[in-house]
Amino acid sequence: MKKMFTDCRLVSMDTDVSQSDGYQVRDNQMIAVENGRIVAIGENLSTDGYDKVSVENRLVTPGLIDAHTHIIFAGDRSGEFEQRLQGVPYEQIAKNGGGILSTVKATREASIEELVSLALPRAKALMRDGVTTIEVKSGYGLTVEHELKMLKAAKTLDQEIDVNISTTLLGAHTLPPEFKDNSDGYISLVCKEMIPAAAELKLADAVDVFCEGIGFSPAQMAKVFDAARAHGLEVKGHTEQLSDLGGSALAAEMGALSVDHIEYLNEEGVKTLAENGTIATLLPGAFYFLRETQKPPIEWLRQHKVPMAIATDFNPGTSPFASLTLMMNMACTLFGLTPKENLYGVTRHAAQALGLRAKGQIASGFDADFAVWDLTSPAQLSYQIGLSPLHARYLKGVEANDD
Amino acid sequence: MKKMFTDCRLVSMDTDVSQSDGYQVRDNQMIAVENGRIVAIGENLSTDGYDKVSVENRLVTPGLIDAHTHIIFAGDRSGEFEQRLQGVPYEQIAKNGGGILSTVKATREASIEELVSLALPRAKALMRDGVTTIEVKSGYGLTVEHELKMLKAAKTLDQEIDVNISTTLLGAHTLPPEFKDNSDGYISLVCKEMIPAAAELKLADAVDVFCEGIGFSPAQMAKVFDAARAHGLEVKGHTEQLSDLGGSALAAEMGALSVDHIEYLNEEGVKTLAENGTIATLLPGAFYFLRETQKPPIEWLRQHKVPMAIATDFNPGTSPFASLTLMMNMACTLFGLTPKENLYGVTRHAAQALGLRAKGQIASGFDADFAVWDLTSPAQLSYQIGLSPLHARYLKGVEANDD
Ligand SMILES: [Zn+2]
Ligand SMILES: [Zn+2]
Repeated sequence: MKKMFTDCRLVSMDTDVSQSDGYQVRDNQMIAVENGRIVAIGENLSTDGYDKVSVENRLVTPGLIDAHTHIIFAGDRSGEFEQRLQGVPYEQIAKNGGGILSTVKATREASIEELVSLALPRAKALMRDGVTTIEVKSGYGLTVEHELKMLKAAKTLDQEIDVNISTTLLGAHTLPPEFKDNSDGYISLVCKEMIPAAAELKLADAVDVFCEGIGFSPAQMAKVFDAARAHGLEVKGHTEQLSDLGGSALAAEMGALSVDHIEYLNEEGVKTLAENGTIATLLPGAFYFLRETQKPPIEWLRQHKVPMAIATDFNPGTSPFASLTLMMNMACTLFGLTPKENLYGVTRHAAQALGLRAKGQIASGFDADFAVWDLTSPAQLSYQIGLSPLHARYLKGVEANDD
Repeated sequence: MKKMFTDCRLVSMDTDVSQSDGYQVRDNQMIAVENGRIVAIGENLSTDGYDKVSVENRLVTPGLIDAHTHIIFAGDRSGEFEQRLQGVPYEQIAKNGGGILSTVKATREASIEELVSLALPRAKALMRDGVTTIEVKSGYGLTVEHELKMLKAAKTLDQEIDVNISTTLLGAHTLPPEFKDNSDGYISLVCKEMIPAAAELKLADAVDVFCEGIGFSPAQMAKVFDAARAHGLEVKGHTEQLSDLGGSALAAEMGALSVDHIEYLNEEGVKTLAENGTIATLLPGAFYFLRETQKPPIEWLRQHKVPMAIATDFNPGTSPFASLTLMMNMACTLFGLTPKENLYGVTRHAAQALGLRAKGQIASGFDADFAVWDLTSPAQLSYQIGLSPLHARYLKGVEANDD
């Protein structure tokens, strides 16, 4: 398959964020694609032997990448949300079976088919917003059987809909009731059974840990990462969301692709990310929804040139937002990021956060995953929300169905 | 036309918010509609002579009403948003021609046809979110000719798409450059020329004033309201958004349908709203986008039983959000409203804010404007955002096209 995309208003994201002046928007560009890969970009390419597709001077960006989601789950926590707003104390909600364990219960009870059908509208909502790649975590099964079931459901999604899926085993999300007061025992299960099984069945691209006072300790995270590494899997962490435990720096030193949330990360930690090439993944939806006040250390991240990714963190309890452009608006409004930093955050840097070397840029050798927009300036993507400016998505050069 | 809607999971909103226990969701309901009006509701109505439409046990609410928008405008202020995030001071942006006057310039230069085509995707975005009625304000023309042009564009919308439009003349939005240092002169133009012309041509249902230190004084607002009343138009105000000038209480005493924003409203003012039956319209999108910290006085509004409406305030500069459900989430998250208060805020109370006596409830005598949702609980509407749970909209009993 040889395809030539013509009349592109191109934003290629092929330059480092700190080296690029503005977005380097280039008009009248052509993109040559062979077998799903970009082979050339320019103004006057020869179209001999290519099928031509004009995008009619629309804005073309890399397909957006949502690098952190929990879209596989069953159950509904809107009732709990409502109770909290009616003044019911959190303890009582938890006592009534609310909180993350209610999601665990419902997810365990659901079949793979049910999990897939529940996740489809969530994935499609992201796709309508220009997303071509979604990272999906497990973490509501908390047994070998149910964590693998979640990963299998995630893996099934890209057979049903036109999107790329990257999967992450998050067995160490929260302590299951079966291991009450025995978190080391549970970590041992994660390391000795879950990770080997997920690796064996090729169900996970990476392994994640929720490293927090209410989650797992940095030492426990290190054990999980060692096991992941031993099985050839990438690692990443939910770190410094609610307190500073040093999890981000430890994760970076252990070669984590990304550390996510990081509201409480200190400057030394930021330097450690820079030294190790770890991506800082910012999740403004959870920050907003939990009414947090401590912002991630944006100025230090800029100073030390740590690439920032932006993701939805779509999940049933703390970030109920299936829109990456809404997250871009929140990153601007709540964290002070620029629209340009945002666009890097959902393309080039998001690909790096997932270890996807052939995605996130429009450049020779990269996959031909594009989003085509009825917009004139990339800044508009972070601004007006709800208007659905997406014209089309392409996956490896083929127009994707949004439905 | 006689139509019977069957198998409704009905949320009728026909009870006062403080008297209703929960949402009073009723299953297996039938709604009888004749000539666009609801004539009966019940479990076992006779369907003789009616066309039957089963909604298959889906949730049915009144069609949502966005009671405060500025969707008619030309120009794009994302560049200004970007500059602000890059650290360019507001004064310099204004000096470079940014701010509201850049919208005024672009809107004056646009034809009616251009204004309509720019507004259509904004209205459609709201419609995809379940909205059946949209209030639309003028306010970027600031001359008789261009204010009337904006109102005509707004009036045209409901001929092009399946939505009800309510129009408001907001000539007193900001001082036009032609009247620099002569705001009384401009108010005189609004009262003596704009209002009579808009009334004569039946282009406006109501008249609005931006009453603020940077806008117009309460005394000027009173002049505008007197002129509006004299021409048989309803009145309402943008009041107490940034400071407490007493505009809300004055507006209420003058019979305003609603006062909008009201972050700085004091308790005496709230009592005045209650005494006069004025609706408090909350605009969480602008609050969020401007990073305000002073919240509207929710507790006093509850205590004194002032009905609260929720609206998008969609506009080019300070609330770029074309989603009423996102505003419902923000009303919960930022203001502490309950999902139930929200649902009243976008149905029954929003209709009251527009003086629409036949809308906002599913009850005998009301227009058959419904939203049908793939949801089980109304609380979900304020919770997960971006998932497009709308199944269908009906306007006067006829299924509406969302496109
Ligand atoms: Zn997460
Ligand atoms: Zn407004």
